Amino acid sequence: MTIPVETFFLAQGAGGTLQQQIRAMIADGILAGRLRAGDKLPSSRRLADHLGVSRITVTLAYTELVAGDYLSARGRSGHYVSETAPVRPEAVGRPDGRGSAVDWGRRMVRDFSGHRIVGRPEDWRSYPYPFIYGQADPALFDHQNWRQCALRALGRRDFDALTEDYYERDDPMLIEYVLRSLLPRRGIVAEPSEVLLTLGAQNALWLSAQVLLGPGRRAVTENPCYTGLRSILGQTESEVVPVDVDEEGLPPDVLPQGADVVFVTPSHQSPTNATMPVERRLALLERAQRDDFVIVEDDYEFEMSFLRPAAPSLKSLDTEGRVIYVGSFSKSLFPGVRLGYIVASEAFVREARALRGAVLRHPPGHVQRTVAYFLALGHYDAHLNRLHQAFRRRRVVMNEAIREAGLTVAGRGDFGGSSFWMAAPEGVDTEDLARRLRERGVLIEPGRQFFAPGREGGNAYRIAYSSIAPGKIPEGIARIAEAIAERA
Amino acid sequence: MTIPVETFFLAQGAGGTLQQQIRAMIADGILAGRLRAGDKLPSSRRLADHLGVSRITVTLAYTELVAGDYLSARGRSGHYVSETAPVRPEAVGRPDGRGSAVDWGRRMVRDFSGHRIVGRPEDWRSYPYPFIYGQADPALFDHQNWRQCALRALGRRDFDALTEDYYERDDPMLIEYVLRSLLPRRGIVAEPSEVLLTLGAQNALWLSAQVLLGPGRRAVTENPCYTGLRSILGQTESEVVPVDVDEEGLPPDVLPQGADVVFVTPSHQSPTNATMPVERRLALLERAQRDDFVIVEDDYEFEMSFLRPAAPSLKSLDTEGRVIYVGSFSKSLFPGVRLGYIVASEAFVREARALRGAVLRHPPGHVQRTVAYFLALGHYDAHLNRLHQAFRRRRVVMNEAIREAGLTVAGRGDFGGSSFWMAAPEGVDTEDLARRLRERGVLIEPGRQFFAPGREGGNAYRIAYSSIAPGKIPEGIARIAEAIAERA
Repeated sequence: MTIPVETFFLAQGAGGTLQQQIRAMIADGILAGRLRAGDKLPSSRRLADHLGVSRITVTLAYTELVAGDYLSARGRSGHYVSETAPVRPEAVGRPDGRGSAVDWGRRMVRDFSGHRIVGRPEDWRSYPYPFIYGQADPALFDHQNWRQCALRALGRRDFDALTEDYYERDDPMLIEYVLRSLLPRRGIVAEPSEVLLTLGAQNALWLSAQVLLGPGRRAVTENPCYTGLRSILGQTESEVVPVDVDEEGLPPDVLPQGADVVFVTPSHQSPTNATMPVERRLALLERAQRDDFVIVEDDYEFEMSFLRPAAPSLKSLDTEGRVIYVGSFSKSLFPGVRLGYIVASEAFVREARALRGAVLRHPPGHVQRTVAYFLALGHYDAHLNRLHQAFRRRRVVMNEAIREAGLTVAGRGDFGGSSFWMAAPEGVDTEDLARRLRERGVLIEPGRQFFAPGREGGNAYRIAYSSIAPGKIPEGIARIAEAIAERA
Repeated sequence: MTIPVETFFLAQGAGGTLQQQIRAMIADGILAGRLRAGDKLPSSRRLADHLGVSRITVTLAYTELVAGDYLSARGRSGHYVSETAPVRPEAVGRPDGRGSAVDWGRRMVRDFSGHRIVGRPEDWRSYPYPFIYGQADPALFDHQNWRQCALRALGRRDFDALTEDYYERDDPMLIEYVLRSLLPRRGIVAEPSEVLLTLGAQNALWLSAQVLLGPGRRAVTENPCYTGLRSILGQTESEVVPVDVDEEGLPPDVLPQGADVVFVTPSHQSPTNATMPVERRLALLERAQRDDFVIVEDDYEFEMSFLRPAAPSLKSLDTEGRVIYVGSFSKSLFPGVRLGYIVASEAFVREARALRGAVLRHPPGHVQRTVAYFLALGHYDAHLNRLHQAFRRRRVVMNEAIREAGLTVAGRGDFGGSSFWMAAPEGVDTEDLARRLRERGVLIEPGRQFFAPGREGGNAYRIAYSSIAPGKIPEGIARIAEAIAERA
């Protein structure tokens, strides 16, 4: 890169001549690794102007640096950091004197990093058998039209949508499409004032928890549940009661008394894939009314219902405005888009919007407008169709491979989805299993992270088919069976 | 738009024949305003498949709806909502039975919407004299190259950067450019583990406050200060002590005892434009060391130093790792990009990163990569140069117009910036002034919102020149003077 002239300062009160100071400044930058082989230096005139010294001073300093092999001169094109410039070996570490004198442990009010997400390896795409959940498959994404929409959203006509600071507003075009095209698929009728765009479903759940929970409040979660929710609730300092799910999801009749908020994933229970039948949904709403609690419905994967039409959302059955509905584009588009939404009573949305304003203002305008075009031009529906077809095919291959390998499915998902919730035989530690499989190119998700501490159920693991080519599935599943057999 | 077939449901347990139910479902949608004139209906075959009814049932329902002028048939191209379809007048309001039975006031743990931002009118761009702060000027922005960079960031090679869920990681390419190109201009040397990308400076300040403040902690702010900071600190339930700034910014010798965190804007005090001299910066750091407090340095406008090179940042003078540095692309690019960064000790960044992960995961990958390319290809520096030249010209016009109109500048900014902090004569209410000017096409920002309640100083207002064409400035300033004269 060309090194910007603004990055050069003469240290105040430094000793030596100006020429020496300039030489030291550049040599130090190279030794510390800030300036790297091949970087281009500003012209001697620009640097002299910037530092307020004469040009000859800079020229002489450059000449000396060339003699010491810090720089190389390439004729008229100027000076570059030499490819063979000296490097101080310890330059990789922390620069001297920049350690912290502050006792940060004492400074910080809460321990946020205690709640860690168990991640995938960063280079997961290089594994041949990635049964990884929730990432986009480049082979299925409609790159071409997404680019077209992004480009259109960058047009001059959309300059305001792109650049402006909305404070608390959302892109009216996207809100319109959410209201008229997405929510009706879930049977939900809403006004613009009842919708809030968020930085993904994670952000929607976080905002909901912050508005509704605090010390002295009681939250109910499914057990097992989405791992991100556990770290969110941990930050609220409220009491969290995990309730074990069964094959129909969260059972309303065993909910504890005195709940303030119940977090639930009725469409595809996360991570077991159970779908809550309509009768149970109605029973849950009735219980909410009787006990006067609020429900947060995380409908993160409804668009992955490709085996049967999705069951009506809790929100669509909610006549009392008790349900806070959370939707997301992470699964239908890709997680890096960081866009989701809340649909709830206006009073709630008003508070969540004000909180969002203080925390982050709003999701970037360009992202909002790009998604709006993608919806408006029909690419979204076409993309979902493509996803559905591909997932249906992969699912057939998964089912067959699982049967052939003799693995046990604990939760299959009657409506589709993108994963299987599996049970290893008694005595198999699935975290150990995951480690061993990783060495053989297979990535699975061990189940323990989804359970409340001390409430782990069985030897669960999850395998998803959203990022693995169908041709790789049989061998991947066979390797899982093999690794299990070694320990069982 | 084409109405997606998935938005149609037959209500459970509805009376009448299937054909009647389909008719009612569509007519209700039209009456409620969900389906609008010109919307295209699914073909009778698709709808029949979706609802699980025979095609003739749908065809007959459509025919009836055409007869009732709900739909119009356009030959082979299908059925559309009729341009003259009946509309129920009350359809604009809230649909029946969707009010909330929940006492949201009692439900919500804190009052977030109490801290409101005093916004500009949404249609501010249509005002001829918008002395509005902090928005991008389409005439100055390098649209062409921004689009090129965005397009490049959408390329297949960058698919992972675009789509992936990083959890807690940032785009390594952007981090590299922040470390090597931006931070050195502020004299800051940092490692990747000491940098965190945020959803703009607002998000950076919010994260810092959340990690460091809570009940029993004491925060110091400048008075007046950035309005967004006040709503952030209000949420921490810590004690907030506002300290009046003078023409050199925050005076270290009058800081209260027992501060935990001091929030400061040394480069361009927000909103007065005062620049803190180096001696005072050193004194502030010395005081921080003696009293063992942490400093959050909001360097939101350092790239707008076009009159003189920016003074060294506090962070560059900080040998103890006490300073949390906040940078932003909102002023140099545009606020809707929602991208900023924190530079701080590793222990602090680790916590802030974990908190960010729970709150929103990460800024969208595409935004990160687009900015990275904009920096890498040199467009950022070229864009800053263009901004500097334009702002310098506008500033000259502003100075001249202000002098001619006899207005009083309270804070001018020796290094540049994009605004003037003004003082109206005693007895002029600048909120009333702003209202009256708005009717005459002039937008100014009254000063009261920047002050701590009960600590308002004088009759301040702010006028910015970042979004007004130079040709409009003299007349705009003249109108301000005129409106002031009416009341003084």
